[in-house]
Amino acid sequence: MAYQLHYWPGIQGRGEFVRLALETAGAPYVDVARGDPKAGGGLPAMRRYLEDEDVKRPPFACPFLVDGRRVVAQTAAILLYLGPRLGLVPAGEADRLWVHQIQLTLADLVDEAHDTHHPVGSSLYYEDQKPEALRRAQEFRRERLPKFLGWCEAILQRNAGNARRELPRLVGARLTYADLSLFQVVDGLLYAFPKATRRALRKTPMVAALHAGLPRKNKRLAAYLASERRIPFSEQGIFRRYPELDS
Amino acid sequence: MAYQLHYWPGIQGRGEFVRLALETAGAPYVDVARGDPKAGGGLPAMRRYLEDEDVKRPPFACPFLVDGRRVVAQTAAILLYLGPRLGLVPAGEADRLWVHQIQLTLADLVDEAHDTHHPVGSSLYYEDQKPEALRRAQEFRRERLPKFLGWCEAILQRNAGNARRELPRLVGARLTYADLSLFQVVDGLLYAFPKATRRALRKTPMVAALHAGLPRKNKRLAAYLASERRIPFSEQGIFRRYPELDS
Repeated sequence: MAYQLHYWPGIQGRGEFVRLALETAGAPYVDVARGDPKAGGGLPAMRRYLEDEDVKRPPFACPFLVDGRRVVAQTAAILLYLGPRLGLVPAGEADRLWVHQIQLTLADLVDEAHDTHHPVGSSLYYEDQKPEALRRAQEFRRERLPKFLGWCEAILQRNAGNARRELPRLVGARLTYADLSLFQVVDGLLYAFPKATRRALRKTPMVAALHAGLPRKNKRLAAYLASERRIPFSEQGIFRRYPELDS
Repeated sequence: MAYQLHYWPGIQGRGEFVRLALETAGAPYVDVARGDPKAGGGLPAMRRYLEDEDVKRPPFACPFLVDGRRVVAQTAAILLYLGPRLGLVPAGEADRLWVHQIQLTLADLVDEAHDTHHPVGSSLYYEDQKPEALRRAQEFRRERLPKFLGWCEAILQRNAGNARRELPRLVGARLTYADLSLFQVVDGLLYAFPKATRRALRKTPMVAALHAGLPRKNKRLAAYLASERRIPFSEQGIFRRYPELDS
């Protein structure tokens, strides 16, 4: 049976990390909230899981995955669940935990990228927190973004065999969901902070090689990125291009 | 061999979730950064793992756990690793993933509690972002804190058997690390936002019962909380009591 992914229909957001795993693995799935409410899709289907009292283990928020009777929320937990099922993790416990640890660290980077445009609160508009956003974005560009990408570069350098590989891997020799997530984070950062991110990528050549090379080497990923299923980046998502926040 | 926990020596912070699991399980561990540098402890021991290029899988930040040759960072990943080893998770994959999902959701709440006093940036002092902190704390008290604790109450109500239990459990019938983490989050919220948290707890009686009952029913936890090993809450940690942020 196809996996059901539940996420906001108009943005990539955190759901995109799950979409990339499902798409690249060629797994059958339904992006429920983007479907027709008359056919059981749309936001009502998503809300049911969040609000109905008969859902025994309700998600706190989307994205969440429904696999038969299982409901799994939290992006990193969804990928922990899907990893072995989609062939996107190595075999051993230690390696799988390391992939998960990388994912959680990338999730922290995603949170911080989001907070550049919403430092004071998610319920307020960007326009109502612009001076604070300018301060927070400056710290993000100068300190946090280079530190996170520098850590990714270090672990790419220390993963044996990457020096010989055209396309580096974060863990072991085969593609993992962490590679896909790093691709997505860099893609989002290049959209939101093109100047600061290109500057950081010049110092992190393996991260840059992974981002550029992954869609070239992976046909399913490339096909997905070129399809209508890939929602464009926008100023409603996590990664937003406000030119005043970049430099 | 004793586990090594590496975390900032002066605060509870995110390390406390790991301490509570280790202490309650009665597991042997060393809180490395609180030890004597002359005896291999202190911050230099922690920094070595963060900075030395010969660490193959370096943490991005503390807390991290060293177990023999294994180094595991990210609070939730550390607990995922320790859970089965300390007997703080149920046996099945589905239940373990659900415990982990709860932990990740509590981690989001912890992040948001932190951001009430540091909305604009972690590198700035609280005093330099007070107006923003007032706005962010208001949203946190009114919207987010009740929503998170309400979700915890809902999952406590839906965990079969809790209606009959004096001390409710989040998952199944036995203590998990998620119960300890919920205890810690409520403890921190009561320190930082006593008025708003007491108000929220009146509507979430099972959460209140878990927080009040856990140290009463668990001797190891109670002994730890009364010991010098339990660092007091303070205005250097995640949960800070700034009376102007509570109401």
